[in-house]
Amino acid sequence: MLLLIPGPVTTDARVKAAMAQDYAPWDNDFRETYRQVCDSVLRVAQGVAGEHTALALPGCGHFAVEAAIRTFVPPGGRLLAPSTGAYAARLQKLAGDAGRVAVPLFVGATERVDPQAVAAALEQDPTLTHLALVYSETGSGICHDVPELARIAHALGRRVIVDAVSAFGALPLDLSTLPAVDAVVLTANKCLEGLPGAAFVVARVDSLEANRGNAGSWSLDLSDIYQHTLVPNAGPRFTPPAPTLAALAVALDLFWQEGRQARLARYTANMRTLYDGVSELGLTPYLPPALQGPIVVNVHAPDAPTWNLQLFVDALKRRGYVLSNFYNTEPPTFRVGCIGAFGAEQMQLAVDAMGGALRDIGITRERTGAPRFFPQPLIA
Amino acid sequence: MLLLIPGPVTTDARVKAAMAQDYAPWDNDFRETYRQVCDSVLRVAQGVAGEHTALALPGCGHFAVEAAIRTFVPPGGRLLAPSTGAYAARLQKLAGDAGRVAVPLFVGATERVDPQAVAAALEQDPTLTHLALVYSETGSGICHDVPELARIAHALGRRVIVDAVSAFGALPLDLSTLPAVDAVVLTANKCLEGLPGAAFVVARVDSLEANRGNAGSWSLDLSDIYQHTLVPNAGPRFTPPAPTLAALAVALDLFWQEGRQARLARYTANMRTLYDGVSELGLTPYLPPALQGPIVVNVHAPDAPTWNLQLFVDALKRRGYVLSNFYNTEPPTFRVGCIGAFGAEQMQLAVDAMGGALRDIGITRERTGAPRFFPQPLIA
Repeated sequence: MLLLIPGPVTTDARVKAAMAQDYAPWDNDFRETYRQVCDSVLRVAQGVAGEHTALALPGCGHFAVEAAIRTFVPPGGRLLAPSTGAYAARLQKLAGDAGRVAVPLFVGATERVDPQAVAAALEQDPTLTHLALVYSETGSGICHDVPELARIAHALGRRVIVDAVSAFGALPLDLSTLPAVDAVVLTANKCLEGLPGAAFVVARVDSLEANRGNAGSWSLDLSDIYQHTLVPNAGPRFTPPAPTLAALAVALDLFWQEGRQARLARYTANMRTLYDGVSELGLTPYLPPALQGPIVVNVHAPDAPTWNLQLFVDALKRRGYVLSNFYNTEPPTFRVGCIGAFGAEQMQLAVDAMGGALRDIGITRERTGAPRFFPQPLIA
Repeated sequence: MLLLIPGPVTTDARVKAAMAQDYAPWDNDFRETYRQVCDSVLRVAQGVAGEHTALALPGCGHFAVEAAIRTFVPPGGRLLAPSTGAYAARLQKLAGDAGRVAVPLFVGATERVDPQAVAAALEQDPTLTHLALVYSETGSGICHDVPELARIAHALGRRVIVDAVSAFGALPLDLSTLPAVDAVVLTANKCLEGLPGAAFVVARVDSLEANRGNAGSWSLDLSDIYQHTLVPNAGPRFTPPAPTLAALAVALDLFWQEGRQARLARYTANMRTLYDGVSELGLTPYLPPALQGPIVVNVHAPDAPTWNLQLFVDALKRRGYVLSNFYNTEPPTFRVGCIGAFGAEQMQLAVDAMGGALRDIGITRERTGAPRFFPQPLIA
């Protein structure tokens, strides 16, 4: 069974094998694993030792997004949050419920965040101390130019929080060149190809020190987690998902063997295979090629009377592939994750299975026979 | 390697085996697993369908404790929190950082919470709307009489939050008879013998409805999680630790095969074997038999010049047993967890290994040859 959802992803058997052991979280062997995982995550972000730190948080990405907002934006503080889609909307709600003011910035459903619009919004409202961005919008499949937007925020003296959950480990991110970024949020179970249950925030040490006492939540206080790491031989602050972290240690070894650029190239090849493949099946991708990111592809639901997403998902599952049975776009779509421990050959088999699943539910389409031209990816 | 820590515990091989699979969290098969796990947790708590609900939260027990306090105690609200030890102190800090006022009630380090003192404190201060209790104090090893204390709170018109993390699944808890209890907090990786990364709160539905909007945190808002369960065919609200929950489903099957009372009897036998065993080794348990709970035993550090907790832990690990390398008691102790997927025979081997580990670090003690008399456990 291959997971074609945008995470949790299909993982390598060696990653799962690490889960088959009981771990004592504060045992010295596990403390070492824990430290290595955090150090490795910091290196993926190209963080600078002493300037950045990678902090682990049990749970899911949304918890870590809330933790980043609580820690770095003071109560009542205001952040600009471009409305890029479902995950930006969640970020806005996480901020609002935590007593911070997330000021939305309109972004069209099939548009990238406009750097000039961000600059204008920040210039017009000096109370917006922070800019919060979703790097890869799982809802739409669009990746936004976080490095460029972070440079704009820096030029205007603002701080940046990045929800990189579905991007981290594939899309480029070099914190050593982005001093405005206070926090990058990620989880184990997306492009790092680990298992779900472990979130991280790579954060600036000076900001963690400067923002002690903001969080209003001990659980979600990154400054407190950071202070705990300063205790000699400190392990996790609270009980960590130890098997998940041990599995992530293996996944990170595999990451370094492959390299970020090779991983992105593999995902991009998966995406192109899918994008061209569904086009050949007579289906229409939601995004034009120039906007299509390498992580998630949404495909318009066939305009056929027998279309039913759940029936399609069920038929595809019988053929060995798991899709999401929901979508976050306004028009009906099905969505396909291009990330995880598999390559373009398997994606081609998945496309063939999608054709079969469509036939299973009574939808036959003439093959165009002419795959779409697809441009080189914009991100490498 | 046998974990003799008070959780995460040693788990059955069948439980770990369930982790060796990639799960799609919103796939219909997994939604069913998710629902079954929540239903099963509700049954362990003897919750009443329609009156109680079991809500899953990714992460650790402390997150769920904070979620319960945030959800049921309004901002600025006051709760009485008897100071039973390290975990009560954490509960107090979780409440305080969340803007609630945890009023401590002194409890001696080797005392059970005094029902009369609780009644008096609640009577004297009508602003204390809630009573927050730790059922099994991991720090000391003492179990407190939560059912009795909850009845007192009920008689005085107060609500109760129970941190049952290290007790749930072993110590008796019958929510159907305890209407004052708003929330019982538990995790997968203690007496349920699952793996770490999944927390739960079994909560009253009427209180969840009445307390919507209290939490001030979307991540930790139990009322919101409950509302999400009302959506037809709802799965998890945010990405769950799916393999951990699948493993818990297996662990719960094993729980029901064994039965709670048999499990408690097994842990009690483990504890007695350890308690008598270390006494026979010439060591002194921290608690007198009448106060010793079945979950955690603390043992006074030997009064020997070569004693060093880390060296002892290392020596014991070489013999196949993992202990904590820290303790929460005021006098130096080492602590031993009596919970997990093993029985008294293995605990006896562990005691023998402790004798060997003591010799390894240069501590020899004359065996008294006379095991201590140990009374019947007070809890069944």
